[in-house]
Amino acid sequence: MKKHNYSAGPCILPKEVFEQAAAAVIEYNNSGLSILEMSHRSKDIVAVMEEAQQLSLELLGLQNKGYSALFLQGGASLQFLMVAYNLLKNKGAYLNTGTWASNAIKEAKNIGQVEVVASSKENGFRNIPTGYQIPVDADYFHCTSNNTIYGTQMKSFPKTSIPLVCDMSSDIFSRSLDFSKFDLIYAGAQKNMGPAGTTLIIVKDEILGKTGKTIPSILDYKVHIEKESMFNTPSVYAVYVSLLTLRWLKNIGGIPAIEKINNQKAALIYGEIDRNSLFEGYADKADRSNMNATFTLKSTAHQETFDALWKKAGIVGLNGHRSVGGYRASMYNALPLESVQVLVDTMQELEKTV
Amino acid sequence: MKKHNYSAGPCILPKEVFEQAAAAVIEYNNSGLSILEMSHRSKDIVAVMEEAQQLSLELLGLQNKGYSALFLQGGASLQFLMVAYNLLKNKGAYLNTGTWASNAIKEAKNIGQVEVVASSKENGFRNIPTGYQIPVDADYFHCTSNNTIYGTQMKSFPKTSIPLVCDMSSDIFSRSLDFSKFDLIYAGAQKNMGPAGTTLIIVKDEILGKTGKTIPSILDYKVHIEKESMFNTPSVYAVYVSLLTLRWLKNIGGIPAIEKINNQKAALIYGEIDRNSLFEGYADKADRSNMNATFTLKSTAHQETFDALWKKAGIVGLNGHRSVGGYRASMYNALPLESVQVLVDTMQELEKTV
Repeated sequence: MKKHNYSAGPCILPKEVFEQAAAAVIEYNNSGLSILEMSHRSKDIVAVMEEAQQLSLELLGLQNKGYSALFLQGGASLQFLMVAYNLLKNKGAYLNTGTWASNAIKEAKNIGQVEVVASSKENGFRNIPTGYQIPVDADYFHCTSNNTIYGTQMKSFPKTSIPLVCDMSSDIFSRSLDFSKFDLIYAGAQKNMGPAGTTLIIVKDEILGKTGKTIPSILDYKVHIEKESMFNTPSVYAVYVSLLTLRWLKNIGGIPAIEKINNQKAALIYGEIDRNSLFEGYADKADRSNMNATFTLKSTAHQETFDALWKKAGIVGLNGHRSVGGYRASMYNALPLESVQVLVDTMQELEKTV
Repeated sequence: MKKHNYSAGPCILPKEVFEQAAAAVIEYNNSGLSILEMSHRSKDIVAVMEEAQQLSLELLGLQNKGYSALFLQGGASLQFLMVAYNLLKNKGAYLNTGTWASNAIKEAKNIGQVEVVASSKENGFRNIPTGYQIPVDADYFHCTSNNTIYGTQMKSFPKTSIPLVCDMSSDIFSRSLDFSKFDLIYAGAQKNMGPAGTTLIIVKDEILGKTGKTIPSILDYKVHIEKESMFNTPSVYAVYVSLLTLRWLKNIGGIPAIEKINNQKAALIYGEIDRNSLFEGYADKADRSNMNATFTLKSTAHQETFDALWKKAGIVGLNGHRSVGGYRASMYNALPLESVQVLVDTMQELEKTV
């Protein structure tokens, strides 16, 4: 039975990516070897890393603009620390829009002073704060473009004279933005880009090396840039599957093409959430995420019936995060519009049933 | 043509592991999903993580002895820093036996005072130092059990009253040791255990929490233990392939069984290096590694002929590390005795040819 995979990450990737990824485990590039047993210094694997770096920059429109792309281990959670280690001299300014933003703030406090410019915590992180001031004496401003748990998304980004740092783990490569406005972007691969195990970092070279502090080698972006993302053994297979996914994205037309489909998917699910009298959305309408739609049943009396309906339809991964409850439809790039229609159908079926 | 893969890591894994690993990329455990798209919080993936942790402890004879097993991202290079962050209060004592030991020392210096108790650097790291004193006022003693680049291996470990920490990246699961003598063992997976992308840490719980310092969450072993190795999204596929490899090891008889074969492989290659008048070993005989045999041609005049011979025989990954030159035969667990025989045959063929 066909599954409709709404997992929040790791998440659905294109079927052709799985097929190519499985074949490479048996034999890669007519080498007589599995990709899993190949040296990261071999010509084949160096080529994978280089293409993944170049294609990331190309898809974001950042080639030849002074940016480096890295594929490192440790997830966004290690980036919370690395950002502060590499950029925080006097003070970091942070916008608190959810669990991951809060964790980024917590980790940065290990390194130095942090100013939280605004937070939507009091409001259950249902919205993105507005009207805040970014202190010009801070070393950088850090924000989270999409909040998977609460289902909110920044639709615009503040203008500031200080470096703009963004955790784009859950919406990178999903929508058109002027990425050159950002000085550092990082993203765990396991949403729109690949499987768990690698993290993309896009950094403008000129913002580095300014803290005057010694940084441990493994946490130093400059070291990783100098070693072309092979300071230590990279997570080879995760980088390869990310490359396959980025190639897929390029082949279907890049970010502008996927953005159209993502907009259709979001319109379809939010339209039904608002129309269907049994459901209500969690996030404020203006800040709704196109990646993660969070919603609840108005009455828990219908929960058992609804859960049975979507499971019967082949839907998996629809349960909301434990801190919010309800449901979360994660609609990353590889989730087809058809899967959203199946979910909407079950919501309408529930309405007819009860 | 069959390849004989001597890569130093990532390296050869059992053929049946590749087959199972490829199948899981298409569909895992009759779920209708690829293992790459499954949530790390799903029942299936939590079970993978738990079994990998338990099986690691079981194979090392460390179950129910107060140890925790973790599978974290970042490689041994991140462990260089984490060890110091978690254990270094006043001073760390280090044995310098090669490149990776030197890097461990360098990173620890970011955190606090380091005493190098002995070093074989002057000798080109050809041997393991002896006769050194371990300061009892140090917080821990750190050593590297096997040095991939120079081809040396510690055949015994010092007795000390302070915690014994060992980087076993390149010989874990390859030989019988009383692992309960160690308080912290870490190992990048990409040698005897699995593909690149995850690192096994075995730590005795009682040594943690004693520095009185705040540790960033992502670098804190206690945080990872409390979250059962899922503080953040783990490198799921690398952990799964490691589990498959550990299952394979258990099925063939565990460490005692593989140790016998590893001894046979080492005896075969070193016997030929010593017998064959064209070659000489790099490391001191007493400290030769059973994992990585380093050797050179006495005359570079034969290099072209020898390189052609072994390449023709299907051997890959035999070139020595750039800092040593010559050849390096990495004979990790999954490399069959047959592959070593093929190499020995080419060395003998060279002798007949020239």
